[in-house]
This record gives sequence, structure tokens and C-alpha cells, in this order.
Amino acid sequence: MKIAVLAGDGIGPEIVAQAVRVLDALRTDGLGIELEYGLVGGCAVDATGEPYPEATHRLTSQADAVLLGAVGGPQYDALPREQRPERGLLAIRKKLNLFANLRPAILYPELANASSLKYDVVAGLDIMIVRELTGDIYFGEPRGIEMRNGEYVGFNTMIYSETEIRRIAHVAFRAALKRQGKLCSVDKMNVLECTQLWRDVVTEVAKEYPQVSLSHMLVDNAAMQLVRNPKQFDVIVTGNMFGDILSDEASMLTGSIGMLPSASLDDNNKGLYEPIHGSAPDIAGKDAANPLATILSVAMMLRYTFNQEEAAKRIENAVKKVLAAGYRTKDIDEAGMKSVGTKVMGDTVLAML
Amino acid sequence: MKIAVLAGDGIGPEIVAQAVRVLDALRTDGLGIELEYGLVGGCAVDATGEPYPEATHRLTSQADAVLLGAVGGPQYDALPREQRPERGLLAIRKKLNLFANLRPAILYPELANASSLKYDVVAGLDIMIVRELTGDIYFGEPRGIEMRNGEYVGFNTMIYSETEIRRIAHVAFRAALKRQGKLCSVDKMNVLECTQLWRDVVTEVAKEYPQVSLSHMLVDNAAMQLVRNPKQFDVIVTGNMFGDILSDEASMLTGSIGMLPSASLDDNNKGLYEPIHGSAPDIAGKDAANPLATILSVAMMLRYTFNQEEAAKRIENAVKKVLAAGYRTKDIDEAGMKSVGTKVMGDTVLAML
Ligand SMILES: CC(C)[C@H](C(=O)O)[C@@H](O)C(=O)O
Ligand SMILES: CC(C)[C@H](C(=O)O)[C@@H](O)C(=O)O
Repeated sequence: MKIAVLAGDGIGPEIVAQAVRVLDALRTDGLGIELEYGLVGGCAVDATGEPYPEATHRLTSQADAVLLGAVGGPQYDALPREQRPERGLLAIRKKLNLFANLRPAILYPELANASSLKYDVVAGLDIMIVRELTGDIYFGEPRGIEMRNGEYVGFNTMIYSETEIRRIAHVAFRAALKRQGKLCSVDKMNVLECTQLWRDVVTEVAKEYPQVSLSHMLVDNAAMQLVRNPKQFDVIVTGNMFGDILSDEASMLTGSIGMLPSASLDDNNKGLYEPIHGSAPDIAGKDAANPLATILSVAMMLRYTFNQEEAAKRIENAVKKVLAAGYRTKDIDEAGMKSVGTKVMGDTVLAML
Repeated sequence: MKIAVLAGDGIGPEIVAQAVRVLDALRTDGLGIELEYGLVGGCAVDATGEPYPEATHRLTSQADAVLLGAVGGPQYDALPREQRPERGLLAIRKKLNLFANLRPAILYPELANASSLKYDVVAGLDIMIVRELTGDIYFGEPRGIEMRNGEYVGFNTMIYSETEIRRIAHVAFRAALKRQGKLCSVDKMNVLECTQLWRDVVTEVAKEYPQVSLSHMLVDNAAMQLVRNPKQFDVIVTGNMFGDILSDEASMLTGSIGMLPSASLDDNNKGLYEPIHGSAPDIAGKDAANPLATILSVAMMLRYTFNQEEAAKRIENAVKKVLAAGYRTKDIDEAGMKSVGTKVMGDTVLAML
């Protein structure tokens, strides 16, 4: 199991360090894990001038999986477009063909208070958002800013092919099969032809999954229903742009985005794994970040890329025990709990493993 | 004051009837109000084959303001794209140049329980979303579904010109001036060039409004922040597509979309006024719909198109009194309140006027 480790910027190195300790522990217990380190994001720009340097691409191409911390920081905001840290993220997704972004939004019972929603509305929440990640308006051409009739216009192209829609639909249906068997596809077919095709293709793919009950929802309604009654959802599948918005909305329903991992997979289950939260430059280097989302990303990696369900569960159970025992980093802290820093949180997970 | 009344489909006629009674009462009290009726949406398709017939366009063109109920229903879902009821809505917006969509999300203290969010998070919520309504990917060309390399692709074009961005920015800054003086512009500039231009132009327009404090937020973050801490916002301005999603999310924070009006204005404050909720075919004809959003749309009409602030306030105060007195339609009902139907709700507002 060759894993490329890209810690990135801000709190990235701190949280990844704790996840690596978990991987080390699993290796000691017999898993054949090999780690190699590379640069991505702002730190890569600092070192090489590019957010996703060729050397990193060589590393990730040869690895079976990538563990990523987070990228970005205020010192990079003024860089030209092509050098911004998030370009590194977009490049790695596109070049490795990581088209299937799996983003669970799970509310841990111990953390139900953290949600801004009422307890009953979110207790037991467990949604999986499947977001297409290498197409849509993110990569569509033509795009740009240019002069037309004496003024600037800015434009981008939303575009999906049948092939692109079909392969992400299959991922979503298979995910639904392993869960409650309910899939909701989100589009804006009443306005956008692109998403009319989306709905048509998803409907066609559904024939191969008679056990899954498929529904369709318009994106504006989905944004509402996530607030009104999120537990109506099991798996949601949608395009890159709508998925960006809805998966962030869904994750915030839990109130604890420091707890949420993600996976981005290619056709062969090679994957990039990362916490959904950002690089949090304000708390970087202060031993204050929550490493659990990154540690849970390792669990996803073991499950999806390496088919090690048992090891994945072991990590997830360790995290549950840590929460049950009352350990909390700042972002999820409450009165009466044991406040700990990043490292001690890592220690505690290791102890529970 | 020439008002075109387009009741539309589903509950449209019932809720508009109550709003018209309010207009009638104001006329009796001396306002020079003239009403003319027309067809839009599914009922227009039934009668003429088109969702926004030429006759209706003549009517709305000559009117100072349009009062609209709601459009759509399951019997129209199978119609070809160009005949669907919501096409009527898009056509009227575009043809009347109603580029500025104002959507307040206000939580009435009496209805705080209806929200799925915790009381403290939403108590006193009062956000104004300013959504651009005649540009963006809704109307951008090229668009369509076509064969390329042996398979179908669907595509749409997100596009904004400086002029389009500038005029909606001015509307938003002026709205902020009348409120808390805070404007948040939402874009996805880290990925979309179109919204990079958006951010640049809004930043430039800000120079003319030194009293307004402008911030920028990425759309994924905005979707999160609306859930996490919606009261951080005063006015939000964004494009047509993001505005569709965020304004629906924001309205659902209140839990009572049966209470929320909207205005869509052109350059001369001619406007279309409608509740933000849909045509609710399931309860149509049952005297169960909440007419308050439509009645509050009349208040917006008096304020924005006719500059009758006093009459607008009179309606809004009547609605507040109705709520304080405990009258509730089904959608906002609670134990211990006075359950009433659409008509009695209208009676009660008239009594409080
Ligand atoms: C950083 C940005 C380009 C990225 C995206 O929009 O995809 C992020 O928001 C995400 O969801 O991973
Ligand atoms: C019906 C639909 C075309 C419309 C839109 O997307 O603009 C609606 O959702 C709205 O927000 O008014």
C-alpha cells in the first residue's frame, strides 16, 4: 500500500502528522504501508513556483492513495490565478481522474449540541453526498474574461457528457446499495439543458439498480430540504458545482466540520483522502486543530482503496470511543468535557485503537 | 397605479384573491388602484398553448406593477420544455427586464418554533438577498444538448457583463444603505472567471458607497454560514444561479416560507411581486393555503414601485397583528393557536388593516 502524503498548508502538517501516527500503528500491526511525502498548495508554490509540481504528480501517480491535509492561506491570496493553492487541488483531481467525490455528513451523537439545528432534526443524521469532481463548469471550455462591445464579460461553460454522468451515477447507485437503498439526484433541469441530460442519464442508469429507489430534486429545493428535514436523504448525487455548495451545506448541518472526512476516487478506486475543512491559518502551529477528520480520512482510504474494512472500522471505533470518553479539541468543545490539543487527541485515538 | 394580476396555477388564485381584497380596501381608503387580470403558467398553456402569451405581455408591459400568485403543477410536467409553466416566469422576467430580485428572509418572532434551527441561531433573523435575475447561466448562450464524438453532451453558459454586474451591485448597495449598512457579495472566484469579474466590479462599485461595509464570500462557504450563523448577514448580493440556491436556503431558515414575499424590479422600479413559495397543487382549492406571503408582496409593491411606504407599513403591521392574535394557517399552525383557512386569514388581515 503506497500512500503519498501531502500535508499542505496551515494546520495541514499538524493534522496529517496525527493521521500518519495512526497509519504507523497499523503498519506495526502488520499492514504493508509505505509512505512518501510531497508538496502541494502554498508550500509547493513557495518551494517550486507551482501549486502542484511535476515531482508531486510523479509521486501521486505512482501511489495507490493520497492523503492530503489542507491547502491555502492569506499569504497566497494575491498570487496570480494559476499559482493559487486551490489550483493544486483542482490539478490533482483532474490529472488523477478522481471523478467521484464521496462526502459523508454524519452527526456523532456526542456532538449533537454543536449543530445549529434542533436536536430532533439532526439526531442520527447520516447522509452520503456523491459529487462529480472532474467535470462541469469547473473545467468546461470556453472560459475567461474578455472585451465584448467595449466592456468586459466573464464566462464559463457548464458541460457534461453522457459518459461522465453515467460513471458517477454508477458510483452513487452502488453507494446506495450498501446503505439505505435511497438515491436522490439533484439537478436544475427546469432551467439548464446540461442538467436535463444529467437527469435523463441517471434515470437510464437506474434500470440497472432495481433495488435502489431513485428520486430527483431541483437544486434550490435540495438546499431547502437539507435545512428543513435532512434525514429524508440517504445518498445524494449531483454535479461538481451543485455538489460543492450542497456538500458544504450538508456538512455544516452537523456543526462539526472538524469531524468530516472525504474521498475522491478514480475508476480503479485509487483515491485522494482529505478532511473537508480548510487550512485554518488562524490556528496553524498552535496545536489547536482537530485531527479527527484527517484520521477518519485514513479510515475511508482503508475502506475504499485498500478494501481493509476491518482496519477502517477499527479507526472509526477508536474515534467513537475518544468522543464517548469526552475528549474534545477546541472546535467541538463543550463545558464538562476534556479539552485537548491536536497531539493529545492523536495520542488518545492511538490508545483506543 | 395600474396593477396586472396574474394568479397562475394551484393555490395561486386563492392567495391572490386575498391579496386583491387588501388592494381593494386600500382603494376604498383613497389609493388610485386599477387592476387588470391575465394568464400565466399552466393555465395560460391550457388556454393559449403558451405559458406567457402575447396578451399577457401586453398587459404587463402597460402596467406599473405585476402581482403574481404561483405557477406549475404535475399535469404540466410532461409538456415540452418551451411550454412548461416556469418558462412563463423566465419569459416575464427577461422581457420586462426585471433584473433585481429582492428576497427578504425574515423570521417572525411568533413563528420562531417553525424553524428547524435553534431559537438563538435564528431569533430576529432579517436578511435581504439581492439576486440578479435576467443574466447568468439562466439565459447564457450557447446552450443545449447535442451529439459530440458519438454521445450526447449537455451544456450551458454562465456569463455576466460589467454592465449587468454593476447595475445589480448598485441595487444591493442602496438596499444596504437603508438597512444595517453591511453587504456580502457571494461568488466562486477561486474557480470561475465569470465570478472573478463579478467580484472585481462589485469591489469597484463599492467606492461609491463608503458608508457600506462590503465583504466577499465564496458560495460554498455562504451555504455553510447561512446554516451556522445566519444573523451575521444583512444584505447578500449574488448572481442568478447562486441566488436561486442561497435564497431558498435562507428562506427555509425561517421555517415558514408561506410568509415570505419577493420583488423583481427593473431600472425604473417597475416590479413583479410574488410569494416565494410554489403553487402547492396538493392543497389547491382546499382553502388551506397561507395568503400572507402574497399579501406581504403587495406591501413590497407599495413600497418599491409606488413609494407608498405608509400603506406598505400598514399591511405589514396588520400581518404582525394577525400573528400576534394567534391566527395560523396550516403551514404555520401550532398547538394552542387559532387554525384558520385562506379566506378567514384574509378576513383577519382586513380587520386588522
Ligand atoms: C478550494 C476549491 C477549489 C474546492 C472546490 O470548489 O472544489 C473546495 O471548495 C472543495 O469543495 O474541495
Ligand atoms: C421556477 C424556476 C425557473 C425559478 C428559478 O429558478 O428562478 C424558481 O426556482 C425561482 O427561484 O423563482
